[in-house]
Amino acid sequence: MDTLASSRAQTRSRIAALRTALSSHPGLAAWMVPSSDPHLSEYLPERWRAREWLSGFTGSVGTLIVTPEFAGLWVDSRYWVQAESQLAGTGITLMRTTSAGSSAHLDWLAENLPFGSRLGVDGQVLGLAASRALRDALARREIALETHWDLLDAIWADRPGLPENPVFEHDPAFVAQTRGDKLTQLRQSLRAAGTDWHLVSTLDDIAWIFNLRGADVSYNPVFLAHALIGQDEAWLFVAAGKIPEDLRARLAADGISVLPYAQTAERLASLSGQSVMIDPRRITLGLREALPSDATILELTNPSTMAKSRKNMAELAHVRHAMEQDGAALAEFFAWFESALGAEPITELTIDEQITAARARRPGFVSPSFATIAGFNANGAMPHYRATADSHAVIEGDGLLLIDSGGQYQYGTTDITRVVPVGSVSAEQRRDFTLVLKGMISLAVARFPRGTPSALLDTLARAPIWASGTDYGHGTGHGVGYFLNVHEGPQSISPYAGTDATTGMQSGMITSDEPGIYRPGRWGVRIENLLLTIPVLETEFGEFLGFETLTLCPIDTRCLELALLTTAEIAWLNTYHAQVRARLAPHLSGSALSWLEQRTEALEATAAP
Amino acid sequence: MDTLASSRAQTRSRIAALRTALSSHPGLAAWMVPSSDPHLSEYLPERWRAREWLSGFTGSVGTLIVTPEFAGLWVDSRYWVQAESQLAGTGITLMRTTSAGSSAHLDWLAENLPFGSRLGVDGQVLGLAASRALRDALARREIALETHWDLLDAIWADRPGLPENPVFEHDPAFVAQTRGDKLTQLRQSLRAAGTDWHLVSTLDDIAWIFNLRGADVSYNPVFLAHALIGQDEAWLFVAAGKIPEDLRARLAADGISVLPYAQTAERLASLSGQSVMIDPRRITLGLREALPSDATILELTNPSTMAKSRKNMAELAHVRHAMEQDGAALAEFFAWFESALGAEPITELTIDEQITAARARRPGFVSPSFATIAGFNANGAMPHYRATADSHAVIEGDGLLLIDSGGQYQYGTTDITRVVPVGSVSAEQRRDFTLVLKGMISLAVARFPRGTPSALLDTLARAPIWASGTDYGHGTGHGVGYFLNVHEGPQSISPYAGTDATTGMQSGMITSDEPGIYRPGRWGVRIENLLLTIPVLETEFGEFLGFETLTLCPIDTRCLELALLTTAEIAWLNTYHAQVRARLAPHLSGSALSWLEQRTEALEATAAP
Repeated sequence: MDTLASSRAQTRSRIAALRTALSSHPGLAAWMVPSSDPHLSEYLPERWRAREWLSGFTGSVGTLIVTPEFAGLWVDSRYWVQAESQLAGTGITLMRTTSAGSSAHLDWLAENLPFGSRLGVDGQVLGLAASRALRDALARREIALETHWDLLDAIWADRPGLPENPVFEHDPAFVAQTRGDKLTQLRQSLRAAGTDWHLVSTLDDIAWIFNLRGADVSYNPVFLAHALIGQDEAWLFVAAGKIPEDLRARLAADGISVLPYAQTAERLASLSGQSVMIDPRRITLGLREALPSDATILELTNPSTMAKSRKNMAELAHVRHAMEQDGAALAEFFAWFESALGAEPITELTIDEQITAARARRPGFVSPSFATIAGFNANGAMPHYRATADSHAVIEGDGLLLIDSGGQYQYGTTDITRVVPVGSVSAEQRRDFTLVLKGMISLAVARFPRGTPSALLDTLARAPIWASGTDYGHGTGHGVGYFLNVHEGPQSISPYAGTDATTGMQSGMITSDEPGIYRPGRWGVRIENLLLTIPVLETEFGEFLGFETLTLCPIDTRCLELALLTTAEIAWLNTYHAQVRARLAPHLSGSALSWLEQRTEALEATAAP
Repeated sequence: MDTLASSRAQTRSRIAALRTALSSHPGLAAWMVPSSDPHLSEYLPERWRAREWLSGFTGSVGTLIVTPEFAGLWVDSRYWVQAESQLAGTGITLMRTTSAGSSAHLDWLAENLPFGSRLGVDGQVLGLAASRALRDALARREIALETHWDLLDAIWADRPGLPENPVFEHDPAFVAQTRGDKLTQLRQSLRAAGTDWHLVSTLDDIAWIFNLRGADVSYNPVFLAHALIGQDEAWLFVAAGKIPEDLRARLAADGISVLPYAQTAERLASLSGQSVMIDPRRITLGLREALPSDATILELTNPSTMAKSRKNMAELAHVRHAMEQDGAALAEFFAWFESALGAEPITELTIDEQITAARARRPGFVSPSFATIAGFNANGAMPHYRATADSHAVIEGDGLLLIDSGGQYQYGTTDITRVVPVGSVSAEQRRDFTLVLKGMISLAVARFPRGTPSALLDTLARAPIWASGTDYGHGTGHGVGYFLNVHEGPQSISPYAGTDATTGMQSGMITSDEPGIYRPGRWGVRIENLLLTIPVLETEFGEFLGFETLTLCPIDTRCLELALLTTAEIAWLNTYHAQVRARLAPHLSGSALSWLEQRTEALEATAAP
């Protein structure tokens, strides 16, 4: 039996074990396993990769539902190709959804579970807001929700424990506001809302409030914790041994007490009669239910989620420096790539190694900010492709190479996608590349009223791509943290983000701008810059915001179909390239500098529609 | 005491009476009066104009909340100017909201009512979905909702009765599908959803399903009714005497039984153990609660709401004819206006009279489709302005005249806005006019995937307007019925519409495209065409839709700042005008024909950015 067949047999036996466990609970019609943990994180510690353990699907997002007769995995279009291959032969049906925010599995449950039956899901990893949407969907058929235990405990014998990596201070040289100041502001928010306590579970919120960082999950410099903040006290729940003694003393000096992670629920149970502010989209049902029934609950977006999204002047100065360092690393990488192409064997894995090595030579580099995506031709058509030792392409012949990568520096987080030509580029590839660039520019030059719901800006990037009957199955932009998560809220330039006021665009936010076009089995194009939201205009209609492009790296004009660009778009590209050259040149020399000069040469404006 | 002072004194005494009634219910902290009726209609029969009766504010949308110490009226930016004037001296505070869909009053309630108190509102006129949003907001402070009686009954002695206008058949010459066919399709939807009954309360849904029309409210040709449809039966609840005997017989022949309007709740109570499909956004809390507690409720968008939004080929042929008739009427009106301007006194009221008279000369005209808005200069800055005998402007001097009007024809419903110059037009006025036109064209030429949530298209019209630091406080487009309501769903090209799948754009829908710029106290610009959604392209990315412009009337090029238009926009305008001339000329002669020829002359393309 080969590895693949053995892995499929394992998946089948795990699903069978789950069904056996399911059958021991009369009336329980199905078990659901979301991709989630007690902190609603994007990257999950191994202990909480239950959906992956059960299904064999290694993508980051997907929802598994198992009934006695059926097992289905709902995945969005980014993962269709990968899931199709990983689910083959497992007996699990691939349920395609068009978007990450899809509620297709809710509709399926409401349509397929028996009237009056029960659905089980571990409430410790189910978001509070998600639990309400689930209950609403199930209520249509009077299906009850069972959330007080985890069926996985019965069948996952060697389930991993919690990560034990140390917590560390964010380098004070790059910290723009002390945790004392942040706590003071947070307490003002609590007083303004008329509430006693604030309970926080999201790891980036906690890292930001306390100016601490960790390494408990891949790529995001965070650590497992909950926090409970009152007017006079602040409790940080972190597993014993993770916080060094000297740091614990400094925290105590700032009025912050550390308690064991496992004591969170017990401490919450003591808040009888108190009022507590929670964010229903950033806390689990399990933690909500750990609060006493006589506590007064105020539901609001975490104040820290809003505050950390708006980078201050000092942080932005550091971020601009990070962009120069990152752009210089990329210039060195691309100079190497162009000289090595055809001269030495290069695979998608080599790209990852070289680009990470180039970043690692820059000061203050900590880690990649996510798993590098280097996809040549057909592999570039999978928006979340990752090359592996078992399966990757050699870069040779003709086509397009898509590289989406980023770095965590102590002074900023980067995320950039570029597509470069290999050999010759076809007319259709040029067309796709140019349409994507038009979409990217269209968003980058937009002006809009302060507070515009971010979802509404998505259409600007998409319109030039839609015009030619193409589209992409992901949002256009995500928020980016400051030496924190490469994906953060509250803004999300995505059709799936909803339009409530908490998602409104504010100055100081950093958001990606990354439209794409993907031709399955052929090639993919995505071009991504990070944009800083800045005030641009104040009129009788209010304050208008726009963007400063932060990312500094040439966009390969060899892939362009010039006739499709307007004179305004060509002017934008020339201005951008002039700025890239001016900002990166001081950090470069030799072949990287020559590469920069060549790739930032101005295009001649042609007559255009 | 003058009329105004007397009306204000009356408002104060009614609010005082409401407070007295309020004080007789211990624990009741506030009473809320939405602008709503048992059918959640836009236009309310007098009986349900309780908010207007209490507050004196005559605008169509607004929410009144009265506590022992405070009375506030929440109105969106369309009505700020009007409400400010009508509320002055009444003791009612004007609470400004930026949008019609605003939840600002919910936040106010949650912040200002005492913990654990109660809010009262008449459940018979409160939407089911709205009641849930209200309950959620109040739950934050454990405030209960009291919905089982109407405090107004105690104080509104001479409350009007129900309208008694007759119901009539939609002229069979213009009906594209029999009610028998529509009921068959609806019953298929019920079977597919696995439900026994469908309860409908929205008047346009009922008029559409049964091919009946009425005159119970202004402008919308509908009649007061509820309908209950099962596999073998169909019940229409209409007040006695409204349906003539011969029509009643024809309905009976189609298997439709008529019961008195007042017996709706009684009949619903008999559905014990049955399953019923309802649309939570198109039914009241009161009617939902009239269903037995053991009924199984399935919540879905009314199938008729989706079906009637997608006009069929036969209906569209009639609509195109309606657009020609309406355009011809407008040509006659504008020809008169230009010759009369300066030669005879013209006021905003004259405009309304003349434009309605021109439409009334066309065959099959029934009524205006809404109250004509003719606003000169400052009055044009109020998007929902209505000239009255007491207060209207004379059209003289220099400036912009905005005319938003429409007609109900047996073969279609129209809605059009044009702005025309009076005397000389300033550079700033030209700029606003041109920016609005750019926005209008930007949406009209869009292509987008089938099912795109309509809210996401709003940004396309807004982007060119935002670019110069301007904006407008209303949505860009509403659905339009077929000899039915001039405002219909499920689509709504508006930032306030939400992005759920039921609002997705589908072919056959008719939607307005009406961006604007309003300078309070100075002038307003809005340009509105109706657009038909049509399939334009099918690719590997799916089906793409676009628009056919239905409205046929010149856009006054004398108001343009040509240098702001791109060559593509000028080409669009010339193509549009050529089509307007070709389609309207056969219906016109004499001065109207000359006017048409002059106002549809092609612009010369200039070099543009």
